[in-house]
Amino acid sequence: MIILGIDPGLATLGWGVIESAGGKLRPVQYGTLGTPPGETLPHRLRSIFIGIQQLMQTYAPDEIAFEELFFAKNVTTGMTVSAARGAALVAVAEKNPNLYEYTPMQVKQAVVGYGKAEKRQVQQMVKMLLGLAEIPKPDDAADALAVAITHAHTGAARARFQMK
Amino acid sequence: MIILGIDPGLATLGWGVIESAGGKLRPVQYGTLGTPPGETLPHRLRSIFIGIQQLMQTYAPDEIAFEELFFAKNVTTGMTVSAARGAALVAVAEKNPNLYEYTPMQVKQAVVGYGKAEKRQVQQMVKMLLGLAEIPKPDDAADALAVAITHAHTGAARARFQMK
Repeated sequence: MIILGIDPGLATLGWGVIESAGGKLRPVQYGTLGTPPGETLPHRLRSIFIGIQQLMQTYAPDEIAFEELFFAKNVTTGMTVSAARGAALVAVAEKNPNLYEYTPMQVKQAVVGYGKAEKRQVQQMVKMLLGLAEIPKPDDAADALAVAITHAHTGAARARFQMK
Repeated sequence: MIILGIDPGLATLGWGVIESAGGKLRPVQYGTLGTPPGETLPHRLRSIFIGIQQLMQTYAPDEIAFEELFFAKNVTTGMTVSAARGAALVAVAEKNPNLYEYTPMQVKQAVVGYGKAEKRQVQQMVKMLLGLAEIPKPDDAADALAVAITHAHTGAARARFQMK
């Protein structure tokens, strides 16, 4: 099964593709989609939409896992990242795939086994679980791989998440 | 010039198309796009995206005006409406049109002449300015027409708004 993990963001969106087969995980590809801050919001959202469409075509993921957004502090940032998430969701929803969403705490719990783990610990586990020679860079890509791993570990055991 | 006004929302998005020529305004069409609350967020965003694409094809607006979002109080509502706005922006950005955005206060100022006008006053002026027999229903459609009128009244006189 091919899993696409997405860590939404407007300036930088992280993505990671892994293959999960017989309890084993294999890294396929990972990276980021960046949009220039000087561009208008509609253009930046359009770039994300097209970028995600291309990922969908290239990797044809069976299931897709998003990192859930939390914005207790900054409403303005929350609005732009929510718009970026909306643009990405529109792109993935075209093929009507199975979509899941995990909180940062769920990701830490699934990857490290401890819901309050440090970012560095998560990255070390991503490297180890995927048999990578180094920690994947940048952080957004590593985060997206962590979400994909979370889904591989927990997705089968839980009901399909209905994103609201 | 054909102007499309949009009042973003997830459950109900209002839209209104007007023609502005020689200082006169003419209503072309207006309505709402609704998405069922029982559906998942990706499906609802996809519906908005497709609905706005169809409006773009049907009316081929020269310029598009959005009502700006404000969420001082409810972050969760802000996130879903921001996602809906993102889906709508992705759809309109395809044709690379001129996009503008107005705050509720700017709309009241432009339509009624008073930034703290009541909703009912705005609706009465929309009816009068467009020569409609009745106040347009529902409120979301009337709001979208008000944004379109705001753009017709003020758009020419101001620099293009760079949505951030």
